[in-house]
Amino acid sequence: MIMDELARQVKESSIKLAAAGTELKNKALAHIAESLNDKKEEIIRANREDLERSEKENLPAPLLKRLKFDEAKIADVVDGIYSLINLEDPVGKTLLSTELDDGLELYRVTCPIGVIGVIFESRPDALVQISTLCLKSGNGVLLKGGSEARETNRILAGVIIGAAEEAGIPSKWAALLETRDDVNDMLKMDRYIDLVIPRGSNDFVRYIMDNSRIPVMGHADGICHCYVDEDADLEMAVKIVVDSKTQYVAVCNAAETLLVHERIAPEFLPALKKSLDSKKVELVGCPKTRALIPVEPATEADWKTEYLDYKLSVKVVSGLDEAIDHINAYGSGHTDSIVTGDREKAARFMDYVDSGNVFWNCSTRFSDGFRYGFGAEVGISTSKIHARGPVGLDGLVIYKYRLIGNGHVVEDYANRSRTFKHRNLHREFKL
Amino acid sequence: MIMDELARQVKESSIKLAAAGTELKNKALAHIAESLNDKKEEIIRANREDLERSEKENLPAPLLKRLKFDEAKIADVVDGIYSLINLEDPVGKTLLSTELDDGLELYRVTCPIGVIGVIFESRPDALVQISTLCLKSGNGVLLKGGSEARETNRILAGVIIGAAEEAGIPSKWAALLETRDDVNDMLKMDRYIDLVIPRGSNDFVRYIMDNSRIPVMGHADGICHCYVDEDADLEMAVKIVVDSKTQYVAVCNAAETLLVHERIAPEFLPALKKSLDSKKVELVGCPKTRALIPVEPATEADWKTEYLDYKLSVKVVSGLDEAIDHINAYGSGHTDSIVTGDREKAARFMDYVDSGNVFWNCSTRFSDGFRYGFGAEVGISTSKIHARGPVGLDGLVIYKYRLIGNGHVVEDYANRSRTFKHRNLHREFKL
Repeated sequence: MIMDELARQVKESSIKLAAAGTELKNKALAHIAESLNDKKEEIIRANREDLERSEKENLPAPLLKRLKFDEAKIADVVDGIYSLINLEDPVGKTLLSTELDDGLELYRVTCPIGVIGVIFESRPDALVQISTLCLKSGNGVLLKGGSEARETNRILAGVIIGAAEEAGIPSKWAALLETRDDVNDMLKMDRYIDLVIPRGSNDFVRYIMDNSRIPVMGHADGICHCYVDEDADLEMAVKIVVDSKTQYVAVCNAAETLLVHERIAPEFLPALKKSLDSKKVELVGCPKTRALIPVEPATEADWKTEYLDYKLSVKVVSGLDEAIDHINAYGSGHTDSIVTGDREKAARFMDYVDSGNVFWNCSTRFSDGFRYGFGAEVGISTSKIHARGPVGLDGLVIYKYRLIGNGHVVEDYANRSRTFKHRNLHREFKL
Repeated sequence: MIMDELARQVKESSIKLAAAGTELKNKALAHIAESLNDKKEEIIRANREDLERSEKENLPAPLLKRLKFDEAKIADVVDGIYSLINLEDPVGKTLLSTELDDGLELYRVTCPIGVIGVIFESRPDALVQISTLCLKSGNGVLLKGGSEARETNRILAGVIIGAAEEAGIPSKWAALLETRDDVNDMLKMDRYIDLVIPRGSNDFVRYIMDNSRIPVMGHADGICHCYVDEDADLEMAVKIVVDSKTQYVAVCNAAETLLVHERIAPEFLPALKKSLDSKKVELVGCPKTRALIPVEPATEADWKTEYLDYKLSVKVVSGLDEAIDHINAYGSGHTDSIVTGDREKAARFMDYVDSGNVFWNCSTRFSDGFRYGFGAEVGISTSKIHARGPVGLDGLVIYKYRLIGNGHVVEDYANRSRTFKHRNLHREFKL
């Protein structure tokens, strides 16, 4: 099986890459940035092929726009690589240091996860961002992009892998997959691949989760809520709900459901409707909502639906507790925001809402790796383990325990001739 | 379905427990310790029932020994609870604080994972340790112990849940499962259960991994290695290998394979064999080993086998690189130790061996939550994400992003009327 051999090679290289120092990795990143600049005409030419073919195949205009990779986009990804160089290396950080006994020192030190399989949408910039994030964090990577971007992805992967190798990175640390069959084969490689990060449609993410033993990091749904409390500044609340819903509707951190405290609903909902009408947002609501503003009824299914469109479901609630319960029952653990002037209620909301991102008085749309200052993100996770929310470099590492002794054996502690000291060393690992 | 309702209740309670303060959790732990002491006669009586039934059912003597839960064992678990009270609360730690812009503050704060399903062996002390670790870390827990310990587990779970409730912890934060069917039902509860920790036989752990969408933390195999380098102090090496193999053979951190540098093998192997013979350890070896000491041949299967017994496979290698390659090919990513006087080789070994615990000049048997100073462990993980090695309180938490604004919306940054500052606040989260 070809995939078996490919995954094995990436795994082997990833072990060497894991030991690469910050200087070497940054040198490789700089060389990748230079090479992308040097080869930009070939890249643009390849992208033009993809665009022409996709146009013929009637790819919808928004997707064509995402597929386009021109001089400005290349300049953006190159800028992104220089930002990444300036970010701290997430590998080799000492998280814990304990003297277990005289001369027996334990260190918990961050290290790369190993090999990561990433499946991403048709934006070619995703390939550059993901592969360089993996390189900086010392991880091997199997990349599968959208088939519309086939030619662009080929040349980008070639330039990146070639430039990294010229800088001294093991040549097989990254590989490009091209077909859907490759993805299915990859999902069986739990022996070599440590984590799969799928970006794409919900159905596809679910398919991945159901068809692999490899841990999956990502999110299937982004059902985000705004809750407008009785103590909210209503002008602020309108601004936040409008931004959360309409700033970019096609993304996972856009709000899909609005919850409104019954005491301010009569004043707030008509004002909000006016603003949303001007943005052509369709509203559906619970009976109490419909008693206040003329909207279609929301069904049970609406509370569970990620519209990704100019549509918002509205529910009037009796207060904070009902809002929290609704979010925990129907939300997807992604991003939820409360608008309130009451600090204690904000604290309760943030404590009790079981989501990766809990916000007070700001738009759900802030839930993003760039905005959080992570430089870039490989995706947003709604998982409850390893990494939650926008995942940047920190989410691509794990740790090893390193124990240094001088002939220490457990029998001495079992027979009580020695006892453990467990003294915090407050020291970085260094051999 | 009964399990559905039970898991839902534990999930609901877990959300309340997640917001419980350190003081309340420690008060509950102290009350659990007192109640276990108060009820010790009933506990011992219940355990005697289990012992009598299991004896009649011809449970092997080592398992009967593990099942026994007498006054001394109760005193041990009570001591363990008082140690746990003294450990730092893993919840509510600020891991990152960034001012995204004026008045827009992001905090990454640790929180419980949610609901954890733990399946453990017949030792009743495991129930006490696991449930109290979950309580301290704010997690709900579904507990399934060995059926041999049925009566003991029932009374222990009753005492623990009752005492926690009396102290003010939500009553349904923990629940005891009793049958294998319960486990199968639990594995389907990915809606409510966030992590499964199986402790038990390898086959059982694999079964769990293959039959649930819930992430699994644990290890199937513990194929641990000692590598004795040419620069090793041979007396130290014998001591470390003997301890790694024989200090307790039935556990996952016991060594199963010895790798020896060819240059010292002629001197080392006969000396080692003498020591291991006195402990009645059966040796199997590669052809080069057999040219030096009289042992049976090792087959390909031996390098992949966790004996959990007085048996060790031995391979002579050409040096450090072959040792590393062998460990990465045949090991299970658990614990591997190098014995060498050469600091640089130790560093290479620790960098390139892809295991959760990499040791220099000490026994593999140190790989354990108590010995690491974690107070206790819920298990040892060979997973590559979330937590590796012995997992204590730290492995039972994840984090939330908490973002505090004052009407901030993304549109202002998209249209460039505002820009992000991303200034490190070096501040604990506090509302």
